[in-house]
Amino acid sequence: MTHVFDEAIVLAPVATAAGHVVRATTHPAYANMVGPFGGITAATVINGIQQHPDVLGDPLALTINYVAPIAYGDWDLDLQAVRTNRTNQHWVFTINQEDHIVATGSAVFGVVRDTWADTEPTPPEAPPADEVEATDFVEFIEWAKQYDKRFVVGGLAEEKNDDSTSTVWLRDQPARPIDFPSLTSMADCFFPRVFLRHGAYMPAGTISLTVYFHATAEELAAHGTDHVLGTARGARFGHGHFDQYGQLWSGDTLLATTHQLVYYKDPA
Amino acid sequence: MTHVFDEAIVLAPVATAAGHVVRATTHPAYANMVGPFGGITAATVINGIQQHPDVLGDPLALTINYVAPIAYGDWDLDLQAVRTNRTNQHWVFTINQEDHIVATGSAVFGVVRDTWADTEPTPPEAPPADEVEATDFVEFIEWAKQYDKRFVVGGLAEEKNDDSTSTVWLRDQPARPIDFPSLTSMADCFFPRVFLRHGAYMPAGTISLTVYFHATAEELAAHGTDHVLGTARGARFGHGHFDQYGQLWSGDTLLATTHQLVYYKDPA
Repeated sequence: MTHVFDEAIVLAPVATAAGHVVRATTHPAYANMVGPFGGITAATVINGIQQHPDVLGDPLALTINYVAPIAYGDWDLDLQAVRTNRTNQHWVFTINQEDHIVATGSAVFGVVRDTWADTEPTPPEAPPADEVEATDFVEFIEWAKQYDKRFVVGGLAEEKNDDSTSTVWLRDQPARPIDFPSLTSMADCFFPRVFLRHGAYMPAGTISLTVYFHATAEELAAHGTDHVLGTARGARFGHGHFDQYGQLWSGDTLLATTHQLVYYKDPA
Repeated sequence: MTHVFDEAIVLAPVATAAGHVVRATTHPAYANMVGPFGGITAATVINGIQQHPDVLGDPLALTINYVAPIAYGDWDLDLQAVRTNRTNQHWVFTINQEDHIVATGSAVFGVVRDTWADTEPTPPEAPPADEVEATDFVEFIEWAKQYDKRFVVGGLAEEKNDDSTSTVWLRDQPARPIDFPSLTSMADCFFPRVFLRHGAYMPAGTISLTVYFHATAEELAAHGTDHVLGTARGARFGHGHFDQYGQLWSGDTLLATTHQLVYYKDPA
């Protein structure tokens, strides 16, 4: 049986006069309040590059800009390998729906080289996942139902907070071995930090998302279906925008760091 | 007299059949070890978008990917406004030299809206700039001579460090009122964190740089020619890549946050 995540990121070739275009279809299981969950869109882009015949190595970096609302239905991913160097490869892409661009972005892939290595931060303190209660978001956020979410701090509650930190155990629901597309999607699983600050849902949406992949394919295989420990915090909120910086951990292994810019409006 | 920074980011129109192309020329004052300093290239892109007749508002986000070495000489910036929404505008660009792409990227600009606001982190502890000694990098890094750099912690020294944090007072040299292009360049002024960890120069270069602009034009005008307090730290180093996350402060005002992915090789 195909996992719902794999159903959601599936791509089909599109015949075109030029370039490399593949077609995705938004999946109702990953719907957000308006349009699809940004994480599933980003994951589908990574999947598309991984399936490209010319791909070199594994994901190192992804930036995706959500330039216009994505309508439910088909969307076309136009991929271009701009440059292949000895150890890395640069991609640019656009996502198109009915002749207009709804997203743009770039990615870097690369081969694993052995070098000196170290990780400076430590994972946030957290009891084991099975000792933390699983929580649901509100009924109308479909994509969140596809994740087992166990908030250590900063769950969604109806109270204001001075600190926008969320630390959360995350896993696909049902469990699925982690890979680069699912890691990408998890990097966007932190709900907008303004919700936490205000203890309320507000109009908000990601404008630009960057993910740096520190994990190797081997590390992801070793992680398997366990929960990932995620942590995210906003820095400055103002003039209708804020950033949030996050980390995703597998034990002491830092799998990914992520930074995103989010649009918001004050609650009415 | 024109400031050397303004000389370095100047752009001239290029007649083209389609699109909007402007031409820059690398400036010897901002040379790096190989090719131009990435910060000045990023600053020139912001300058190019600001000068575009269709620009909406001020910079909110920039991602630039350094896909191939930039040769000293002319380079062409091909700018495309992908989408203009009510309050923001999405750009994509490529930088071309002699018919090949040397950089790609995207930017978001937007208008200032009044909303609820807060800043969560506080600036790093630092004595006033005039109480910290100014330092030079090695002779062959030209661009660094264009900055007054006063390291509070994490200056370049011939010793290994377990912590890759640098905190530094930064200012154009000679002093110049800060603006969005110069803030962009300062976001790349943190030398590669591997130098600090190893107490040595090593082969290293930025692959992808993202800057989120939290400052308004009004805040930059109020800052004037004072030093900016910057701080940056790496998270995970391994397999030839690491990230570094940084913040740039004007007093208690967080001007920008930045995240970059850097390539490195072990010292021979």
